[in-house]
Amino acid sequence: MNSFGEHIKLTTFGESHGVAIGGIIEGFPAGIEVDENFIQSELDRRKPSNDKASTPRKESDRVEILSGIFEGKTLGTPIGFIIRNENQQPNDYDYLKDIFRPGHADFTYAKKYGHYDHRGGGRASARETATRVVAGAFAKTILQKKGIEITAKIKQIGTAKTPDEIARLIDQTKADGDSVGGIVECVISGCPAGIGEPVFGKLQAKLAEAMLSIPAVKGFEYGEGFASATLRGSEHNDAYIFGTDYKSAPASNFGTDETSAPAVPAVRPATNRSGGILGGISTGQDIVFRVAFKPIASISKPQQTVDKSGNPIELINQGRHDVCCVPRALPVVEAMTAMVLVDFL
Amino acid sequence: MNSFGEHIKLTTFGESHGVAIGGIIEGFPAGIEVDENFIQSELDRRKPSNDKASTPRKESDRVEILSGIFEGKTLGTPIGFIIRNENQQPNDYDYLKDIFRPGHADFTYAKKYGHYDHRGGGRASARETATRVVAGAFAKTILQKKGIEITAKIKQIGTAKTPDEIARLIDQTKADGDSVGGIVECVISGCPAGIGEPVFGKLQAKLAEAMLSIPAVKGFEYGEGFASATLRGSEHNDAYIFGTDYKSAPASNFGTDETSAPAVPAVRPATNRSGGILGGISTGQDIVFRVAFKPIASISKPQQTVDKSGNPIELINQGRHDVCCVPRALPVVEAMTAMVLVDFL
Amino acid sequence: MNSFGEHIKLTTFGESHGVAIGGIIEGFPAGIEVDENFIQSELDRRKPSNDKASTPRKESDRVEILSGIFEGKTLGTPIGFIIRNENQQPNDYDYLKDIFRPGHADFTYAKKYGHYDHRGGGRASARETATRVVAGAFAKTILQKKGIEITAKIKQIGTAKTPDEIARLIDQTKADGDSVGGIVECVISGCPAGIGEPVFGKLQAKLAEAMLSIPAVKGFEYGEGFASATLRGSEHNDAYIFGTDYKSAPASNFGTDETSAPAVPAVRPATNRSGGILGGISTGQDIVFRVAFKPIASISKPQQTVDKSGNPIELINQGRHDVCCVPRALPVVEAMTAMVLVDFL
Amino acid sequence: MNSFGEHIKLTTFGESHGVAIGGIIEGFPAGIEVDENFIQSELDRRKPSNDKASTPRKESDRVEILSGIFEGKTLGTPIGFIIRNENQQPNDYDYLKDIFRPGHADFTYAKKYGHYDHRGGGRASARETATRVVAGAFAKTILQKKGIEITAKIKQIGTAKTPDEIARLIDQTKADGDSVGGIVECVISGCPAGIGEPVFGKLQAKLAEAMLSIPAVKGFEYGEGFASATLRGSEHNDAYIFGTDYKSAPASNFGTDETSAPAVPAVRPATNRSGGILGGISTGQDIVFRVAFKPIASISKPQQTVDKSGNPIELINQGRHDVCCVPRALPVVEAMTAMVLVDFL
Repeated sequence: MNSFGEHIKLTTFGESHGVAIGGIIEGFPAGIEVDENFIQSELDRRKPSNDKASTPRKESDRVEILSGIFEGKTLGTPIGFIIRNENQQPNDYDYLKDIFRPGHADFTYAKKYGHYDHRGGGRASARETATRVVAGAFAKTILQKKGIEITAKIKQIGTAKTPDEIARLIDQTKADGDSVGGIVECVISGCPAGIGEPVFGKLQAKLAEAMLSIPAVKGFEYGEGFASATLRGSEHNDAYIFGTDYKSAPASNFGTDETSAPAVPAVRPATNRSGGILGGISTGQDIVFRVAFKPIASISKPQQTVDKSGNPIELINQGRHDVCCVPRALPVVEAMTAMVLVDFL
Repeated sequence: MNSFGEHIKLTTFGESHGVAIGGIIEGFPAGIEVDENFIQSELDRRKPSNDKASTPRKESDRVEILSGIFEGKTLGTPIGFIIRNENQQPNDYDYLKDIFRPGHADFTYAKKYGHYDHRGGGRASARETATRVVAGAFAKTILQKKGIEITAKIKQIGTAKTPDEIARLIDQTKADGDSVGGIVECVISGCPAGIGEPVFGKLQAKLAEAMLSIPAVKGFEYGEGFASATLRGSEHNDAYIFGTDYKSAPASNFGTDETSAPAVPAVRPATNRSGGILGGISTGQDIVFRVAFKPIASISKPQQTVDKSGNPIELINQGRHDVCCVPRALPVVEAMTAMVLVDFL
Repeated sequence: MNSFGEHIKLTTFGESHGVAIGGIIEGFPAGIEVDENFIQSELDRRKPSNDKASTPRKESDRVEILSGIFEGKTLGTPIGFIIRNENQQPNDYDYLKDIFRPGHADFTYAKKYGHYDHRGGGRASARETATRVVAGAFAKTILQKKGIEITAKIKQIGTAKTPDEIARLIDQTKADGDSVGGIVECVISGCPAGIGEPVFGKLQAKLAEAMLSIPAVKGFEYGEGFASATLRGSEHNDAYIFGTDYKSAPASNFGTDETSAPAVPAVRPATNRSGGILGGISTGQDIVFRVAFKPIASISKPQQTVDKSGNPIELINQGRHDVCCVPRALPVVEAMTAMVLVDFL
Repeated sequence: MNSFGEHIKLTTFGESHGVAIGGIIEGFPAGIEVDENFIQSELDRRKPSNDKASTPRKESDRVEILSGIFEGKTLGTPIGFIIRNENQQPNDYDYLKDIFRPGHADFTYAKKYGHYDHRGGGRASARETATRVVAGAFAKTILQKKGIEITAKIKQIGTAKTPDEIARLIDQTKADGDSVGGIVECVISGCPAGIGEPVFGKLQAKLAEAMLSIPAVKGFEYGEGFASATLRGSEHNDAYIFGTDYKSAPASNFGTDETSAPAVPAVRPATNRSGGILGGISTGQDIVFRVAFKPIASISKPQQTVDKSGNPIELINQGRHDVCCVPRALPVVEAMTAMVLVDFL
């Protein structure tokens, strides 16, 4: 339950307030040049930034790679890495000892384990996603060599879909001491046809598992997704054409997928309502999926709840927290996507 | 890629037009009474019925259990079973040899394997879901003893949400020679708190993987799902109350979850916007999720496409096909849900 | 615990007195021509023969392949197969109900499972090895194409090492109503260098696991094996030579390994005391290992023991049994070896 | 290939001359008190000691535990740990660049990976066994609570079987600039009946795999082992008796197994020729097995071999090396045994 992937596998460890978090990447091929600056830069994308959606708390996450690389190239042996924890101020969390925080995992961890680490979520903390980003950066190193690009973008925050709208919404939500959810759209371009396996190994099944394993994710859809439920077969099926000229084909819902236009004339889907996957296997077109994030559970606004003894209390969060997790989730969505893809390659 | 589950594991085999399909269920505990009639009855639910959405083709799927049961009880040894294929008329499919059918896996299988079995989809055919229903029936046998019930219902077909609306839509779609998608809502009631694992083993991740492995599924969401993206934390968080009386608590979006009301007063979530899972672990409330199905790719209506040489053709489907897969998908959704749950128990 | 292999994996089911035994072979590559007569002929090698070591009971084991093969070639999909059980005369075993048979698994199964199937051993019966032979025959089909041959031979039975000696020993043991153990030597020729993995994936570790999973096996050694404990480094190390002419090199303990002589001059080990594996990885020479089998537990000679209530009894076996399992074990040793190798390739 | 175990799983990383070696232990139960001094003391047992068989080189292996333990007790979360490498003097190995050392893995690593790390063996170095000893110490912590003790002893070195003989042989071998092999006998006492699984999950299969994964191991046998091949069934079968008094029963080959004498009268095997395992499952008696180690490949004595270009050379080892690996292998044998057992519990 601490591992992800079959062929290229990440196994992680670490509590958010322990000595360190880290992981082992197994199955990574030998002889790949690794740019440790790139690995660190991906990790930096996940840090709280100066944008308005993020907490002002600073963490200086530095990844230390312990094995598997020699003279700048991978050895094919397991890549061990650690990120030491800082900012450990356990007393910050003392006031939470007798409370299940609404929307957090405290309640279920208490039910499952009898006791739990109330200090920032322990293993349930989103801090564990830092190890995913490290492994994802390694995975991207392979994918880039193959011309595969993964780009996660903010599709909407709350109901806002444009940068201006979004900035205004973040400001307003912050002023209200509240938080807000959002939707990320991720596009994989340059992925060759034939990736994925039949039956239980479908590409979309592994992507869905990967996305729903990210904290705060509530939904996954690919291609037309939930909207496909309202379509007819004659509207949803992607007919085939012969040629290289994508633009002459009816436009897909997902805009340009020009990267997937064949260099030589070939039979290919004219549109991409399928989202780039048919029967669990990639078509060679852009793979397009969306991921829904719930609003962050920690809010400054007072919440009426009860303590563990059942006494009514008003919970007022004392920590500093992001207004919306979506901006910091982008590298995590990309990382998990990258790990799914390299595992199939 | 032919297996599902870790502790109780199904491994399947079989092409839709081969000798038989079947599977092995490993890890099933010893000493469980098994009602073979119940197993068969679950399989019967998946058959084309007399309802208007299904193909009139008849299959008499009979499951033969080969091992693992002795004097009506499980031995704890692997349960092997087969379902022989009938109605094998390979020539029915000869006209498809030179065509990639829009919306089917022919194109991606050809890209992946070089050649493929054009006869009804081979391993990509939804016929393989029959083995899932058998394993799911075994899983339900365990769950029922623990008071856990799984119920999948049609939430909508196309845009229709009531039985009358739906019947009219099916009739109209059939008359048009077309097909239509839909949404299934599945509720797990009686599930104790504490089911699921941290990080990569989250209950929702395994449910999402399970659902997206079902043919034609395009999306998964639980709790408020995609709608949660538009909510604020103060609206989405489930506050805690102390008591047994669910009804005095603010109503959840998902209607009654009376089954989860505690017998003795306890601290519990007042609402169920979370969908019964927090931090990857069940809360003890109803677990509620929804699954989007695309319209069936095979339609009678002519489709403009090209053959494998790139020549424009009009494809007219000669077989008989369902108008909507959703009614027959209900036992499959339940079966996969049951397998996810028993694997965690 | 019912599966063997990672990449090409066999999962088996079936009790010796149930409806059928069988298995699923996953990961087998597509497009391989399969000769079903060869598969059956391997299975026939495991049957009690007319030789003096085997029981006169007849079984007509016929393997039925249910999936994964189309027009004589593999599809790359799982290969399901069954072998129906015959000769089911459960009453034959009634006299054993109250006895733990010395040397059999009855005692440990009773300790582990509380109850057990006294009829011929259930899942503990050597009958399950028939499914291994089927999977091994598939594995050999791949190995033969690569020029890899696996040959298991009787090294000794009791203390007898020549055919004459062995025949005499078998006769005498049979006349005494007793049984006898033996040693099998297995040689893999034509195996390229580089097969095996570091650390926990060493070739010898997987071979040892495979051999010790065969009923009645008590020991495994490769190369000089236990004798290497008494050697010095200067005696045991294989020095390197340059050339193609194996014969000019000092003779190995294991006789000719001419198949591994390189076609063009190369640096290579001069001798093969290592048994063809260094650091867990094949050297390109013959791989040589030996497997010790204990005497069959079922003997006709009366045995003084106690029944389950502790009353002294004299146990007299009523069934017909082999005098020595080694001759019938040869195809099982080869099958498990083949499965280990294809899994690494 | 870097992991060992299913339920309690060790995954390791690290090259012998990289930054650090380490591992992750997953599945370790929560709430177990861990004595870090005990963990370190087990690791210290593996270090070169002052005894005459070991190299005088000093390593100060210190294990740093990074996660999974809170206030002295396990959390049930993954236990990450590292051991930093010291004594890195890569230039020490420069003279080996153009040589395949006889008896080492250089040759097979070169064949497999094209290039290899000539500095002390990289991942093939026995240094990786330090991570096994750490994981084994955690495993022993569980076993001790259950009254299970694992004791590995030197059975023989070369042909010497008594301490005096052994000391003389070590001295003589050292003086000769040579090395020598040996045999370890390991006894598991206090193991309850019922441990192990049928078919591919037999206890002896997992022990054999574990032992053959240790560098330099050439053979494994349990109970009568290879000697059982020369016995008859009437000699090898362990009859049953009723009682508690072990001493009145015929003596086993393996001396006293008084720890397994039942407290209340019971039906039990009178002798232990089986080695404490029947049908893959423990009998409740002492489990006894032996492991053969080859002589260490590195010797000071000159060796006639060829360099990589095929030129004859005389190789003279410049490093300091153990005369016999058996003393330092004892904690490794115990550690792997402990990991096999806890994985089954």
